[in-house]
Amino acid sequence: MKSYPETSSLLQTPRHNPSYFEVTSVLGHVIDYCVPANPYFPSQKMQALLAESLPDLLKYYPDYGPGTVAALSDITGIDPANILAVNGSTEVITVLVNSLMKGPILTDIPTFGRWTDLPVDIGKSLILFPRPMEQEFHVAPDEWVAFAKKSHVQSMVLCNPNNPTGSLNRRGELLNIIERLSHLDLIVIDESFMPFADEPERDSFEKMASRLPNVVVVKSMGKALGWHGIRLGYVVGHRQVIERLRPLIPYWNINGIAQYALSLVRDNQAAFFQSHARVVEDRRYLEQRLRKISQLRVFSSQANFVFFQIPDSCDGLDLRERLLKNHRLFVRECSNKVGSSSAFFRVAARPREDTDRLVAALQREGFRTGQLESESPA
Amino acid sequence: MKSYPETSSLLQTPRHNPSYFEVTSVLGHVIDYCVPANPYFPSQKMQALLAESLPDLLKYYPDYGPGTVAALSDITGIDPANILAVNGSTEVITVLVNSLMKGPILTDIPTFGRWTDLPVDIGKSLILFPRPMEQEFHVAPDEWVAFAKKSHVQSMVLCNPNNPTGSLNRRGELLNIIERLSHLDLIVIDESFMPFADEPERDSFEKMASRLPNVVVVKSMGKALGWHGIRLGYVVGHRQVIERLRPLIPYWNINGIAQYALSLVRDNQAAFFQSHARVVEDRRYLEQRLRKISQLRVFSSQANFVFFQIPDSCDGLDLRERLLKNHRLFVRECSNKVGSSSAFFRVAARPREDTDRLVAALQREGFRTGQLESESPA
Repeated sequence: MKSYPETSSLLQTPRHNPSYFEVTSVLGHVIDYCVPANPYFPSQKMQALLAESLPDLLKYYPDYGPGTVAALSDITGIDPANILAVNGSTEVITVLVNSLMKGPILTDIPTFGRWTDLPVDIGKSLILFPRPMEQEFHVAPDEWVAFAKKSHVQSMVLCNPNNPTGSLNRRGELLNIIERLSHLDLIVIDESFMPFADEPERDSFEKMASRLPNVVVVKSMGKALGWHGIRLGYVVGHRQVIERLRPLIPYWNINGIAQYALSLVRDNQAAFFQSHARVVEDRRYLEQRLRKISQLRVFSSQANFVFFQIPDSCDGLDLRERLLKNHRLFVRECSNKVGSSSAFFRVAARPREDTDRLVAALQREGFRTGQLESESPA
Repeated sequence: MKSYPETSSLLQTPRHNPSYFEVTSVLGHVIDYCVPANPYFPSQKMQALLAESLPDLLKYYPDYGPGTVAALSDITGIDPANILAVNGSTEVITVLVNSLMKGPILTDIPTFGRWTDLPVDIGKSLILFPRPMEQEFHVAPDEWVAFAKKSHVQSMVLCNPNNPTGSLNRRGELLNIIERLSHLDLIVIDESFMPFADEPERDSFEKMASRLPNVVVVKSMGKALGWHGIRLGYVVGHRQVIERLRPLIPYWNINGIAQYALSLVRDNQAAFFQSHARVVEDRRYLEQRLRKISQLRVFSSQANFVFFQIPDSCDGLDLRERLLKNHRLFVRECSNKVGSSSAFFRVAARPREDTDRLVAALQREGFRTGQLESESPA
């Protein structure tokens, strides 16, 4: 394998991508296709409102807890007794894995790194269910349930839609799984990317989690909001599960800027949900454009990114490097995810002109596309 | 007791003060003496720098962990293996109380509410050591050690300097306590207000905690920084204790704005520490001015606030209400702290003109002061 002295130590992180700030400090301005951030919310006007309030938001303590729960309840329609605000989904993942999920824990792979790394770090038994590539990484309920029973797991987590593959299980499939695994101590659905599914209202388990004693739904809000830097998420579950979680989640865990962002969502819900529909359009366009590149194996996505495989003849690290150096485009190569390899890329849905730019760069790097001129991109 | 329909439900919170945002949304602009916030750091220029970086700080993921540890290590001189960044001191308090501190836990009272409320919430045995008012709330090592042994506690926490009394134990006294209680499983020193002691370098236990297997020092940085809204703190301890804490602290727990603030501290350390010296001057002036009011019993403080007692003849809730309604000054009346009552007030050190304003308001509300004109306020 070639070596890339300039960027190798920066990009070859064992577990996660380097932050955008690290990358740009070394490489200068790049277009980032790693972090799938909603570009349509909050609006420029909302950002200006935040900037105006900034001195007070920085200076004073935010609400210690009840206010954020009330705002989340307004937005989701979920009873305050069934919801908690968290400092990004990683806060509740950390608490769930350490304190509430009994091992062996079953998880799908590939998935968000914290679900695979943290149990191993603390010595909890972890059972990996490899999503089958030949079925577009879809989890078949029968296979999942059989695997769970055979492995005698006590808890499970499913990332739905899955990160990084974009594969979705419909709500009916989840209900099927949950009913047949009702003996499990805890069932976690990580819906951080659900806002970017074709029909979140139809497939989200959020509103049902309150009624089941052993199901919790975890949500990141950074993705939906387009502001990953603020750290915001929530967890929904049965009153009894929330009562177990509450003393494990710190007071004042949501910083003042995140609380302000939450109030922007509460006060602009139509714009918030419309922004997700626009990202879905961008994702469809991205998927369509990538499918025109015959050497790529592109997987159907229900998230705000598209997952694809490059041919064996192509070196993934080399391709990432060429896109970065020759085109200033930064894409996510997935070799540091359990259950993935450097042959897989996760590319964020960005506005159409950025997708066109990426496809043009791939063409320049030797990927051939079919005729596009006669086709409607919509 | 009188009733205060307009503000009673707002201010009579069971555990903590309402946020400044709640108060001002009901009452309009007030001068806040509740939150002891450093007004001298970050500078206006630093705030402008942050505002400039704001769009990127909001949009992109911050560093997931190692970067904040490196910055804290630069600032404190402590080895990265002995320090962790936390989302405000409440994050590590929550983890310590839930997972690392065995009961019975010994704590001083009055103290920060999370140290008394959380153990009770989760059913952990808590032993309260009342700081003696007649000794200016000072904890005498002999008495503390005897009390700890008699109560068979397994862990302890001491808030030093104490919140809300401002009482300080010198480092030698702490060493004495720690040596005589070396059988304890965990000893926590909450030094969130240490930057405002007369000589933090002399009395902080921060640099010694790394060397002792059962001592951790907890620090809030919001107070030292003057930005409470961002949530930032750290914990220092022996490598083995930090390794136990690490999997319990989430990745990406420090938001992007807090990481930027941390970089401002790292790059402007002289200004940071000088700002604390200015707050110490303000606190001395406040204490001096309050001592001129003969009806107040004022306690020596080594923090960025001053604690005082009003006479029995005066109703604390009524006084708080009058200062708020007649003068738009918002002070902390301490009836919702275990070990305190409505006869006690904690007033933040603010620039001299604000202290003068508070003293003038107290005079208008019937408190008499001695002659001040001929005396130097410095």
